[in-house]
Order: sequence, then C-alpha cells, then structure tokens
Amino acid sequence: MTNTTNYQPFKDLLGDRFTQSPSDRALHGRSESHFDEMPPDGVAYVETVAEVEAIVELCSTYNIPVIGWGTGTSLEAQAAAPLGGISVDFSRMNKVLHIDTDNMLVTVQPGITREALDIELRHTGLFFPVDPGANASIGGMASTRASGTTTVRYGTMRDNVKALQVVPASARAMRTGSRAKKSSAGYDLTSLFVGAEGTLGLITELTLKLHPRPEAVSAGIVAFPDMVNAVDAVIATIQMALPMARIEFVDPDAVRAFNAYSGTSIQERPQLLFELHGTEASVAQDAETFRDICDGFGGEEFQWSSKPDDRKTLWTMRHNAHYAILASRPGSRAIVTDICVPIAKLAQAIRETRDDITQSGIKGPMLGHVGDGNFHTLLLIDPDQPHEKQIAQDLSDRMAHRALALGGTCTGEHGIGLGKKKFMTAEHGDAWAMMGMIKSALDPKNIFNPGKLVP
Amino acid sequence: MTNTTNYQPFKDLLGDRFTQSPSDRALHGRSESHFDEMPPDGVAYVETVAEVEAIVELCSTYNIPVIGWGTGTSLEAQAAAPLGGISVDFSRMNKVLHIDTDNMLVTVQPGITREALDIELRHTGLFFPVDPGANASIGGMASTRASGTTTVRYGTMRDNVKALQVVPASARAMRTGSRAKKSSAGYDLTSLFVGAEGTLGLITELTLKLHPRPEAVSAGIVAFPDMVNAVDAVIATIQMALPMARIEFVDPDAVRAFNAYSGTSIQERPQLLFELHGTEASVAQDAETFRDICDGFGGEEFQWSSKPDDRKTLWTMRHNAHYAILASRPGSRAIVTDICVPIAKLAQAIRETRDDITQSGIKGPMLGHVGDGNFHTLLLIDPDQPHEKQIAQDLSDRMAHRALALGGTCTGEHGIGLGKKKFMTAEHGDAWAMMGMIKSALDPKNIFNPGKLVP
Repeated sequence: MTNTTNYQPFKDLLGDRFTQSPSDRALHGRSESHFDEMPPDGVAYVETVAEVEAIVELCSTYNIPVIGWGTGTSLEAQAAAPLGGISVDFSRMNKVLHIDTDNMLVTVQPGITREALDIELRHTGLFFPVDPGANASIGGMASTRASGTTTVRYGTMRDNVKALQVVPASARAMRTGSRAKKSSAGYDLTSLFVGAEGTLGLITELTLKLHPRPEAVSAGIVAFPDMVNAVDAVIATIQMALPMARIEFVDPDAVRAFNAYSGTSIQERPQLLFELHGTEASVAQDAETFRDICDGFGGEEFQWSSKPDDRKTLWTMRHNAHYAILASRPGSRAIVTDICVPIAKLAQAIRETRDDITQSGIKGPMLGHVGDGNFHTLLLIDPDQPHEKQIAQDLSDRMAHRALALGGTCTGEHGIGLGKKKFMTAEHGDAWAMMGMIKSALDPKNIFNPGKLVP
Repeated sequence: MTNTTNYQPFKDLLGDRFTQSPSDRALHGRSESHFDEMPPDGVAYVETVAEVEAIVELCSTYNIPVIGWGTGTSLEAQAAAPLGGISVDFSRMNKVLHIDTDNMLVTVQPGITREALDIELRHTGLFFPVDPGANASIGGMASTRASGTTTVRYGTMRDNVKALQVVPASARAMRTGSRAKKSSAGYDLTSLFVGAEGTLGLITELTLKLHPRPEAVSAGIVAFPDMVNAVDAVIATIQMALPMARIEFVDPDAVRAFNAYSGTSIQERPQLLFELHGTEASVAQDAETFRDICDGFGGEEFQWSSKPDDRKTLWTMRHNAHYAILASRPGSRAIVTDICVPIAKLAQAIRETRDDITQSGIKGPMLGHVGDGNFHTLLLIDPDQPHEKQIAQDLSDRMAHRALALGGTCTGEHGIGLGKKKFMTAEHGDAWAMMGMIKSALDPKNIFNPGKLVP
C-alpha cells in the first residue's frame, strides 16, 4: 500500500505479466466518468484461476489491496485504486469454457466482453441478453449488477447469472450456485457476489443463462408531445404485459446530440425507442398494439421495421449516446446519474429532475430505461470549472434523494463504487451496516477493493 | 433453552398471547414430513413488529432460540424447535398492508397465506403467482425460497420478493431492497434473507411483485408411452420458449393415487399436466403448438380446456397429490425428496431414480415441476418399521448425490432445515463454510433458528 511495499513476489509469479509501468498503472486508474485518476501500484495480467489464488494469497499475506479490472467502463470508479495495490486485469481470461445449449447455459471466464460473447454464441440460436451499452466485461457486469436496455424483458445480471466461481479471502477458489434452474439449498451466495463490486472476492468464472434468439425482431421509434405522455404510454404498456424487449426514453436534448453525432434527423421531441422479440407474426401484432397504446397518449410519427439494418442504426445511435452527448459540448466530462424509481413515480421524477437541471444553468440530456423506472442524465461540465462540478454534484445529490423519497434507489445499474457511498445511509439505514458486517466477516483484512461500497 | 429458563418476561410482554400449553407447544413442534416432534418451550402469537423486536431483544439477552412459524407446512423441519426456545407464530400478522396496482406491488405481513392473498388481490386484476401447493404463509414461502407449479413461467420467491422488513440480531427492524424494479445499491440482502430459513432474522413484512391476471387460461393433460418421451417433450417446449405457465409430470403410481383419492379415471400412464396464460387467441394457439410438440414425442389423448371448472379439477387434483399419495398407503408417512437438475439431465435423473425405487421394495410415486428440472418422490414408509425408514433415507441420500453428480441441487424448493444439512458439504464445499461465516457475523449468539441450514 505504500511505495515501500515489495512487489517482487508478484513479479516472481507472473514475470512480464506483472507490470508497474506508469502507463499501465495510469490506464488502470482511470474511469469513464468524472473521477480523478487513482492508479494501482501494479497490474497483474492473469491467465489462470491458480494465478488469481496466488495473488489473493500474497495480497492477504502482505495486506495489499486487490481490485478486479474488466474493461474499465464502470461509472462510479469501482475499478480505481484509491489505496493503491494490485489491479487484477482479466482481459486474458476471456474464454468461453462451455456452451450447454440443452440447458441454455454458458460458462465463461470473467474477462470476455459482452460483444465477444455474442459472437461466440451466434451459431447456437441462443443469446445472452444483458446489454448495458458499453462493451463491458461479463465479470464487471456481474460485479456491478449491470442491466441496460433489455432488462424490461430479460432482467438484470442478478437474474441471468446462474452460478459463479470466486476466489474469496481464503485464496481458494470456490463455487456458488449450481446448474439447476432453481435451488433452496442455503444462502444465495451467487446473489451476494453479483453486485458486490469485488469487495468480497474476485469472480473467476460465471455460468450465465441464455435465451432463445428470437425468430423475428422489430424495432421502432415514436415521438410524443411531452415527456409525461411518453412515460404514461410506457406504464400502460408494462401493465398490459406487452412483452417489450427494449423501451427507451430520450429527451429532446439527447435527440439533438444524436442527430449531430450520427447525422440523423430525428425530431427533437421526447421519443421512445423500442424493440420487440418473437415471431414475424407476433412482433408485427405487438408493434401494432404498441402503436395503439401510443396513439392514446398522443404518440406521433410512429415508425417500426423488422429490417436488421434499420434496427442496427437505431441501437447504434442509442449505444453511442454517452459519446454523442459528450461531443455536444466539446471538452466536457459528464457526471452520469442513475436513479431508478417505481414506474408510477417515473413521470414525477423526470419532470422534477428536468426542472432542476433547467434552473441549474448546466446542460443535462436525459435518457433512460423507462420500462424499469430507471433514467440517466449526463450532467455536462467543464472539468476546469470547479463551480460547474459543484452544481452538477448538487443536482446529482438532489436527484438521489428525490429517488429515495419516491421509494426508489440512488442507482439502478451503475453501482456504488466511490461515488454513491454518501447515499447509502439514506437508502439503506441499518442495512448498510449489515453489509459492512458481511464484508468484515468475509474479508477481515479488507483487501478486496477497499474503500468501495461498504461503510 | 433449559426448563429453568424464566419465560416470565414473555408473559409480561404478550399476556395470554404467550403460551406454554402442551398442545400449543406440540402443534408448533410438528412438521408435515417424517420428523419427530420437536416442540418449542413457548409460543408467541405476535401482532406487531414492535413485539417481534421485543421478543428478539429478550431472546438475545437470555440466549433463547427464536424460530418463525407460518403454517407449519415446511418439509425439512425448518420450523421445529430441536433446542427449544420460542416459536414466533405469525398467524395474527396476516394483513395486506398496501396494494400498489400502478407499480404492480403488494406489501403484506408474513402470516398471510397464499390463498388469502389471492382473494385479497382478486379485484385488482393482478395476482401473486408463486404456488407451492400447500396453503403456506408468504413469510414461510420466502424463508424457504419456495417455488412450485408456476415457476417455469413466473419464477420462485427469489424472483418475486422485491423488498423485506426484517428484525435481525440488533432487535431493530430494518428494510432491505426498495420499490424500484432494479437496483445496484450494494449487497443484495433481500436475496440473502429469502431462503435463509429464519437463521439470520425474522421477516416482518414483504413487498411482492404482482403480475397481470391473464385474460385467458387454458389447462390440459397429455399421456405419454413412457417418462422419457414426456420429459423430452418438455425440454423441446422450453427450448422453443413456449410460455408454459405450468408443466407438471406425474408418473403412473401418482395417477393411480389421484384416481383413488379424487374419483377420476385418468389413464395410469406418464402424464403431463399443463396450463397456459394469455389471451383467448394466444392460449388456443399455444395449446395447439404444444400439442404438435407432444405429438412428435408420442403424446396421446391430448385434452385441453379453457373452462375454469375443468382447470380447477385438474389443479385441485395436483394440489392434493401429497394427501392422495399418503392415502394410497393408509397409515404411512412420506419422506419427500426434492432434487433439481439441469433440464437436459432430467430424463436420466428420473429413470435412475425410478429404477432405484423399484429395486428398493418400497413405494415412491413421483411427480414434478419438469419445466424446472425439479421432481419429487414421496417415499411411503410405515413409521413403525424402522427398516423402511432406513431404506427410504438411503434412497433419498442416493438421489441427492445423483442430483449433485448431474450438476444439480439436493433441494429445488423445500430447503435444508434439519433434513438436508448432510448434503451441504457435497453440494457447496467451501461455500457452506462461507454461509456459516455470514451466520456467525449476523447472529453471533446463534439465537435465530439454531441447528438449521448452516454448519
């Protein structure tokens, strides 16, 4: 943890795959968000579970922090090293270990990315649905309990991780869960590690649920006179149990940024982007049902298509949202908010947030996974203007407390890391202390990702 | 914990609602399964969360075991009191506290039963789907992570409990989870308490997910030449993502018991019972699709109906299975097994189990939630014949180890309690020890349901 720590045992273990070069350290201390660089003392490019066990053993012996690293796309500095230590880079542990089409399961190493996994699965007729936008690693997605655009239909990482192999403080790999669809055999440790942000151990293997690749997919877009209408249309849709595969809200500021970035010419109005999965007949029928619902709430310019190219254009645009919005203010950085509220409170939460941002004087385009009650604002700040950062932080704080007052959570999918610890007492009360008790019991030396998530 | 324990403080707290009468103690020491009576020292009929807090405080002060009690339908002696102590009977905490139709959530007290909740929800157009057969309490269902016939479509208690209020060792009620559809805000304590069998604290309130009551329901039955064909038809159905709401296997011995108990005349062959939820058009179409699949695997005598009376007859018969099968051997008791395997291994697991039972000389009708890979045998024994109990225990042990060898679990939905602790090392390895570490951290005096689930 100090510069006097002797990292020779790590060099002995990994040779050139352990590095303390300034560039590697800097790379593993950065986040995609607004946090300052917090580099580890060294980076370990692991290739085997045995190496992970050996690293945890060494870190335990010498009281060195150990932090998992996937692709660095987390937004609350989950993979940063505020106390130094070792960043365990899983990018070389990126294999598909076993595809089990009969049971619709796949077992992977943690470093495989979402897009790489999708390619590996293409020949199977199955797919892994969780899609947070970024091409994150599957281990990282599990650790932050990621979700994204398809959650409304397929659930979050909590719902789609069946079993894990983890290396806990014992430095001995162990398994949680089984390949059975369900179990009542004791505490649900899989759910405990999913979302633990690496504070209880390192994930070294994941068994994921797969879903049949839909025979037909349709996607489309519909404009609304204002945001409340759009949200009400979504609530009606969810309550009818229409099986939307994606349903995304974007506000006019976000549309403007998309248009500028992608050369599109979408009307700068509140829009819903949607996708349906099923048979040719069912997606057509569901699209028409959805059109009827939208009509009832003032929806206009309803368009849909089942052509892959049209669909790809739409979702590429949505996936590039983060970069498009950053580009709308050159040189800016974003404080990204992530509140999630019960869906019936969503219109209120969005309206109050919109008004708050307008009054603040800074820009904050808004988009969200409205089917889940989850939305983001990208509060754009000039990093050289401390008062802008303060305004954005204050906005973000008020948003979190607004979500809690409405029965929601300060983070739907980005996690706690360093950035959201300040809301944990308000959100959880005694339950946050209980999280700390679990952390202390399972990681008594506090080597796993210290400083994050728990008190 | 001994007869010298002074229970006066409990009498002072609850008056007549604390009782040490032999009949009340005996009632709260029984299970529906094969376990001997293990009565508590006293029974507390609680009415408020404050009373639960006070009881936990007293039990903590005097080191007295404290065990939650719902309806006593658990099958692994989860609610028995092997070390004495207080049975906290939640039957008077049985209210619906808040129905939130907009967010499709309901908040209830733990003592409400599944059927009572269903009645309370009828006017809403929504329903709570988890159906373990028995008219269990919702608190008990959460504590054992129950599931049942509808899990193939709607999931288990893990998937349908959104948030909890629990009284942990601090004796201070706390909340886990929120009303938002998803969250990444720290460890998933809700999932930790669901399935913990009361070993970490007492559940005093539950917020549950509701689902739209289907516009149309169809149900039916189809016979197969042998069990393997029936199971293969189910696997094909699941892999097509046909949205079965229930899909249950019963073997010829179970059919014979149903016929004798209910006066029906179903063919004594392997049968699948199924249900579909949707619109009139979709359930008709799905039933025909399912018929086509079954035809391909030798299905015969396919019948289905969307009439409520026909459906009720079918599922009443299935719900009475436990009692029908017990009645097939008067005076018998049952050791009920509950293994769950990856669905592609199900035919193998059932076939090997069937052969093993046949060779054992005792009867063991078989039925199961085949869409989940989960099935039960009711091993019928004469309680006065110790060698029969031994044969059944040995069968049950072999079944559990067979499930583990196939990548499954020793219990799909009944839980661990006292009966299945012996399989925990084989199933979980180091993970069982980790469960013990969590238990010790959260309940250092080991007052909550001692002797169950953890090492």
